[in-house]
Amino acid sequence: MKEIRAEIIAIGDELLYGHIVDTNSHWISQEMSLLGVKVVRRTTVGDNRLDILSAFKEAEYRADLILITGGLGPTQDDLTKPLLAEYFNAEIIEFPEAVAAITDFFKRRGRDMIPANILQGHLPACCTYVPNEVGTAPGMWFERNQTYWMSMPGVPHEMKKLMHDFVIPKMAEIFDLPVIEHKMIKTVGIGESWLSDLIKDWENALPKHIKLAYLPSLGHVKLRLTAFGDNKDRLKGEIDDQINRIFPIIQKYIYGYDAETIETAIGKLLKERNETVALAESCSGGFVAHQITTVAGSSEYFQGAVVPYHNQFKSSIVSVSPETLANHGAVSEETVKEMALGVKNLFQSDYGLASSGVAGPGGGSAEKPVGTVWISCAGKDFVKTKKLQLTQDRLLNIQLTSVALLNLLRVCITQEGE
Amino acid sequence: MKEIRAEIIAIGDELLYGHIVDTNSHWISQEMSLLGVKVVRRTTVGDNRLDILSAFKEAEYRADLILITGGLGPTQDDLTKPLLAEYFNAEIIEFPEAVAAITDFFKRRGRDMIPANILQGHLPACCTYVPNEVGTAPGMWFERNQTYWMSMPGVPHEMKKLMHDFVIPKMAEIFDLPVIEHKMIKTVGIGESWLSDLIKDWENALPKHIKLAYLPSLGHVKLRLTAFGDNKDRLKGEIDDQINRIFPIIQKYIYGYDAETIETAIGKLLKERNETVALAESCSGGFVAHQITTVAGSSEYFQGAVVPYHNQFKSSIVSVSPETLANHGAVSEETVKEMALGVKNLFQSDYGLASSGVAGPGGGSAEKPVGTVWISCAGKDFVKTKKLQLTQDRLLNIQLTSVALLNLLRVCITQEGE
Repeated sequence: MKEIRAEIIAIGDELLYGHIVDTNSHWISQEMSLLGVKVVRRTTVGDNRLDILSAFKEAEYRADLILITGGLGPTQDDLTKPLLAEYFNAEIIEFPEAVAAITDFFKRRGRDMIPANILQGHLPACCTYVPNEVGTAPGMWFERNQTYWMSMPGVPHEMKKLMHDFVIPKMAEIFDLPVIEHKMIKTVGIGESWLSDLIKDWENALPKHIKLAYLPSLGHVKLRLTAFGDNKDRLKGEIDDQINRIFPIIQKYIYGYDAETIETAIGKLLKERNETVALAESCSGGFVAHQITTVAGSSEYFQGAVVPYHNQFKSSIVSVSPETLANHGAVSEETVKEMALGVKNLFQSDYGLASSGVAGPGGGSAEKPVGTVWISCAGKDFVKTKKLQLTQDRLLNIQLTSVALLNLLRVCITQEGE
Repeated sequence: MKEIRAEIIAIGDELLYGHIVDTNSHWISQEMSLLGVKVVRRTTVGDNRLDILSAFKEAEYRADLILITGGLGPTQDDLTKPLLAEYFNAEIIEFPEAVAAITDFFKRRGRDMIPANILQGHLPACCTYVPNEVGTAPGMWFERNQTYWMSMPGVPHEMKKLMHDFVIPKMAEIFDLPVIEHKMIKTVGIGESWLSDLIKDWENALPKHIKLAYLPSLGHVKLRLTAFGDNKDRLKGEIDDQINRIFPIIQKYIYGYDAETIETAIGKLLKERNETVALAESCSGGFVAHQITTVAGSSEYFQGAVVPYHNQFKSSIVSVSPETLANHGAVSEETVKEMALGVKNLFQSDYGLASSGVAGPGGGSAEKPVGTVWISCAGKDFVKTKKLQLTQDRLLNIQLTSVALLNLLRVCITQEGE
């Protein structure tokens, strides 16, 4: 089978000047890997005619598929569209369907258009217009000598939607995509090297056509299994087999598979049990509530949260006794325990979660340095607490507290692990 | 003065396959911008001989300075060093100083070496050895026909140290670094095309050596002014001049400059006035509290938040009257007004902010479709409300609500705009 080679071109001075991070190229890389398409190069160029044209030319030499993001805004410094027209030797003409879609987009949002928006519906004559339902810059698809091009806006959610709705289905039509099967095992509460040590015998015994990748992220490690072959069902079966073998070894760290997140996993657990949760967040400042409520349908099991950022509100709203605060301080096992119990009572929930810590950069002491965090989970007939010693970085501390607190809830619900 | 053109080449399959995020290229971009060096291209290639050699060749054509990261590990799939030797037509020879440094590195850490580590001290004969004090792969500096090359390991903290200790001082020696001045104007509450339309006369009248870029992100647009010249103070003055001209036109949308965010801007406004804020977040689910509390020192002006995710808690905790909820529903001007007043009272704050809406994907109706959000800000003697009609996307709705709510607070504090 012919290897399919893709290139990614990101366009924008703001990327080269380091004013914004190019998350698109990374995301597209991941999607291509999942499809078994080889990304051979990623290029970032600025808003400059010659640089963009040379990137087009070089990519056309090498790749079967060229995915371009950025440079499609309505302003004068956006060059992608006119340069694609120049490169393909095409006129820019009105695509009435595109103009209608843009007009409709503004109408639906109750916003007025300016003439530059109308011009976003004028495209190189040789391209296929690809509707962008969530933004004003249309996608453009080009074909020449069996090389395929897609130009997309740089706004991540617009690009992703165009990739899923149009590019990926189109790729399946055009290319003889290899047969690949993936499965991601999601773990939390164990570091990469510890995990690697635990599963090394299993890993060494994997057959050659099944590959393992460790994908660590904040507080999590994902294990990705990729099987190559020619029969999707057989590959699926082989991967399930391998998971059955590894499961008993790392069961207590596994919270889910594939697209599952720890938030969705917790949602599933609570819904199955018809139980609810409420939060008292001090150092995590509302981030855990945010994580939980990003999940659609979370109102079924999420009762609510309080962020009592000062001691007086820990008492007046969440019922922590002033003596506890005076004797042990806000960042203490005693306080976080009472917060968990108090918020569980306030919201009449089955579980109460609480966090209190020194997020930093200020507020640390010799006894409780920056990064000291207490978390707690109160359930029907128990209160669990845990002390974390995190980093010097405020945002990181907030994020790591959130992962630890959600994992503590998971452990309390399932009565597994720790 | 000659423009100095830099290119960044990142090497590694793990980048192209999306297994790890390339944060190095972004960081180097930022450093180059600050130095007034123009990054003309960033390229990512895999661990493949031809791809790497062609990236070298293309870069040499275009750039004065080529910064390479990655591909310097001790294993066979790390190709950067042998390919640099091949490209520069040089033998790889032992650099005793490099071998000694590597040996010392392992000794200091009490770790054993493998033979491959010793070979990391063998380098292309034509390069300048650059010691890496925090890792095992040395830096390598090359010069040919007034193009300069630096090869660095991909580990971010090793690369950063080599950049600061060696590359940047070296650049100041070699190049007649240009003088560049940047300033970013941060706006909120107006779309890119509207903004562009408002300021088009000002934009068209900008002198040639001052460039403008629009950098839109969720609910925000940043305007970046970049001035090129030979006198930093004069450029600074010219940029300030331009800002003075544009300020009256878009004053009400400007919340800050450069690194300021809307959260830090609000913090500054509240601290100046010695005022405080509290939140009742329904549809935004704690995200606004999170945004505010990511700012160090936010406890000075942030009292706390409640996320009353169900009607009963909107009444029992935030004191919305059950009649209001029964008559108008949770997503209504009346409810959100009472939430803002109730939470202001609960936390004894100067401002109370509230959100209530249909985040989606479920819960919409003909009268209140998904994306319908009411926000409110209660102050000393007023309550402002605003209705938003957002998107079909839950996370986007949460984020856009947050921006709108923080902007409503800003407007209420400064009494400007809207």
